Amino acid sequence: MNVTVSRKAHFNAAHRLYRKDWTDEKNSLIFGKCSNPNYHGHNYELIVSVTGEIDKETGYVIDIQFLKDIIKEEVEDAFDHKNLNVEVPEFKDLNPTAEHIAVVIYNKIKPKLKPNLHLEITLYETPRNFVSYSGK
Amino acid sequence: MNVTVSRKAHFNAAHRLYRKDWTDEKNSLIFGKCSNPNYHGHNYELIVSVTGEIDKETGYVIDIQFLKDIIKEEVEDAFDHKNLNVEVPEFKDLNPTAEHIAVVIYNKIKPKLKPNLHLEITLYETPRNFVSYSGK
Amino acid sequence: MNVTVSRKAHFNAAHRLYRKDWTDEKNSLIFGKCSNPNYHGHNYELIVSVTGEIDKETGYVIDIQFLKDIIKEEVEDAFDHKNLNVEVPEFKDLNPTAEHIAVVIYNKIKPKLKPNLHLEITLYETPRNFVSYSGK
Amino acid sequence: MNVTVSRKAHFNAAHRLYRKDWTDEKNSLIFGKCSNPNYHGHNYELIVSVTGEIDKETGYVIDIQFLKDIIKEEVEDAFDHKNLNVEVPEFKDLNPTAEHIAVVIYNKIKPKLKPNLHLEITLYETPRNFVSYSGK
Amino acid sequence: MNVTVSRKAHFNAAHRLYRKDWTDEKNSLIFGKCSNPNYHGHNYELIVSVTGEIDKETGYVIDIQFLKDIIKEEVEDAFDHKNLNVEVPEFKDLNPTAEHIAVVIYNKIKPKLKPNLHLEITLYETPRNFVSYSGK
Amino acid sequence: MNVTVSRKAHFNAAHRLYRKDWTDEKNSLIFGKCSNPNYHGHNYELIVSVTGEIDKETGYVIDIQFLKDIIKEEVEDAFDHKNLNVEVPEFKDLNPTAEHIAVVIYNKIKPKLKPNLHLEITLYETPRNFVSYSGK
Repeated sequence: MNVTVSRKAHFNAAHRLYRKDWTDEKNSLIFGKCSNPNYHGHNYELIVSVTGEIDKETGYVIDIQFLKDIIKEEVEDAFDHKNLNVEVPEFKDLNPTAEHIAVVIYNKIKPKLKPNLHLEITLYETPRNFVSYSGK
Repeated sequence: MNVTVSRKAHFNAAHRLYRKDWTDEKNSLIFGKCSNPNYHGHNYELIVSVTGEIDKETGYVIDIQFLKDIIKEEVEDAFDHKNLNVEVPEFKDLNPTAEHIAVVIYNKIKPKLKPNLHLEITLYETPRNFVSYSGK
Repeated sequence: MNVTVSRKAHFNAAHRLYRKDWTDEKNSLIFGKCSNPNYHGHNYELIVSVTGEIDKETGYVIDIQFLKDIIKEEVEDAFDHKNLNVEVPEFKDLNPTAEHIAVVIYNKIKPKLKPNLHLEITLYETPRNFVSYSGK
Repeated sequence: MNVTVSRKAHFNAAHRLYRKDWTDEKNSLIFGKCSNPNYHGHNYELIVSVTGEIDKETGYVIDIQFLKDIIKEEVEDAFDHKNLNVEVPEFKDLNPTAEHIAVVIYNKIKPKLKPNLHLEITLYETPRNFVSYSGK
Repeated sequence: MNVTVSRKAHFNAAHRLYRKDWTDEKNSLIFGKCSNPNYHGHNYELIVSVTGEIDKETGYVIDIQFLKDIIKEEVEDAFDHKNLNVEVPEFKDLNPTAEHIAVVIYNKIKPKLKPNLHLEITLYETPRNFVSYSGK
Repeated sequence: MNVTVSRKAHFNAAHRLYRKDWTDEKNSLIFGKCSNPNYHGHNYELIVSVTGEIDKETGYVIDIQFLKDIIKEEVEDAFDHKNLNVEVPEFKDLNPTAEHIAVVIYNKIKPKLKPNLHLEITLYETPRNFVSYSGK
């Protein structure tokens, strides 16, 4: 029996959409106000979903406390109250679009899970815009 | 890397569940109060989800502003503050169940997207009832 | 000890903003698309809030089941899946703005409560627009 | 055309995570405060999602009123305001983790549906923790 | 300038509505299924609202981290994953209705605040039922 | 009959808690990670509530479209996708705490309303932290 277990988490961060190898004009043309050089920010809402077989001993797919701890270490401690462009190494040369942030979070959490567990990341950049990524 | 990008939108409309080729009695028998001849209405909440590869230039699957514009033109301008049965041509001979509305929205948005993008429509008729359709 | 007890409820209805004593042109000028003669509709979300002393016997301000029953009889049975303009007598000569609907609901529920209880009605017409009225 | 129709429902219940065949110490070690012998509880939010072809007569995948009735009989009447460990037979020898509750709900609802309909159960144990199961 | 600062928090607990000085029959008659002797439970959502003048130094009415710490110590540590009737001393002889829980929380938090700060407690027992109390 | 009409709106912004007249050490000591010199950010959710008599002609307290336009001009155009500390003149010498942002929004909107209308601003800095101000 395969069940998906999901945990919601949260972090606040500043960012701008920006490519170093483009001129400011091109950044502004393509990304509009999202490329404001002074940054803007979001309350990012995160859903981490792990799919796998129910463990016959515990009745768990994964201990939700263990999952909370991974999310805290890999995402909240790394991203919360940070400027993604300036302070988070993964975005030094990667434009912090919601798509890329979801991929980065996936790549940080996946190695912490048992290999047979499937992972999906859903990230709300605003209450109306969100993305999801599952490693495919 | 395939990511799904979702955008929420909203429209208010009146409708009734009704088939022209059925008697009023049969409409009332099958659809109950949802077939009230004087109409009732809903705040429809819409989620438009587009799946595809991340563009290497922009870091986007799709420019969310472009997606917003499509939703506005194809759905909000066409359905908002309207009577679906009376004023929306797609429902002239199609019973406006949530299922059918989702299919109609899919069919209106899909041709506006690049062919390699996968589309899913989720439509909340009420906060407790919702449907989704992805063209299959 | 005065406590406020609130109960959420829900009804779907069609309506249009319209005054019979105005021309169609004036209705359209003042109320815009909300005056569409073919109606539009909403999922109205209702919060009924009752304030009073905690009963020493029960520990209740009001039995929430009793409050649910009043809301069902006075609001849900009367308004749900209805056309407010056409089928609800209170709006025969009263423009069904959110403000007026809240006042009508207040006036229907207040007499069902013990006189020493204070009542407030909050009505969401959409997730972004809402009104409240407390009889003042 | 395959559409998924979802209905939200709700029940409140007490439970504890507990295996009869383990000592109290082991239960406490593995399940922590969730194994409190005096129980704790949740407002479980349930989403029942049914996927199938749109019926050409009605425009429905499934009559939502029929689905509501099944959920009421199989889940709400059986679980609401109950102690899952003590009063719900399915958990007599099954640890009531969110994963197991979702599987039990699936197994209760699936036989009530036409065999060609696909079923998925999503169960929120808290606003931040939820699971889903679709019989695979 | 008086501003109200609010913080949301959360705890899960089991309870039953019950008066020791009443017979089981009377408890059952008055409180219905809420008096189930085996308990049921809720995800209680709490809003703690503090009103006062903005401090000219900090621009805060109250440091939200300080408020979080008070809520954790006085409410979450005391109530979360507990059986309110059995394990929380304040309800030893007090029926744990939502009204009484809000009053108890008020009385626990108020002495921790500077005396000139006004306090209001809002407590959701379910997403549809909630109460508020401000010491009057 | 006095009714309160509320409209929700939204803006994203970067900010840091910071007083120019304090050393970096003192800013960091008092405001912690909220004073990060590289900024962080939020999706601010705004509720603008206007209380007044129902107009006998229109049945409105205020035309919600007019209120939307004021919010757009005074708040969204001024704050959305901006760095509050750097780009919004009101915060040049004012620490952009949630309390101060609410007061600034109040002071921008109040003069646009008829003087007999009462105004309250509620501002969510995160889904769990919010403030409200009504000019007192």
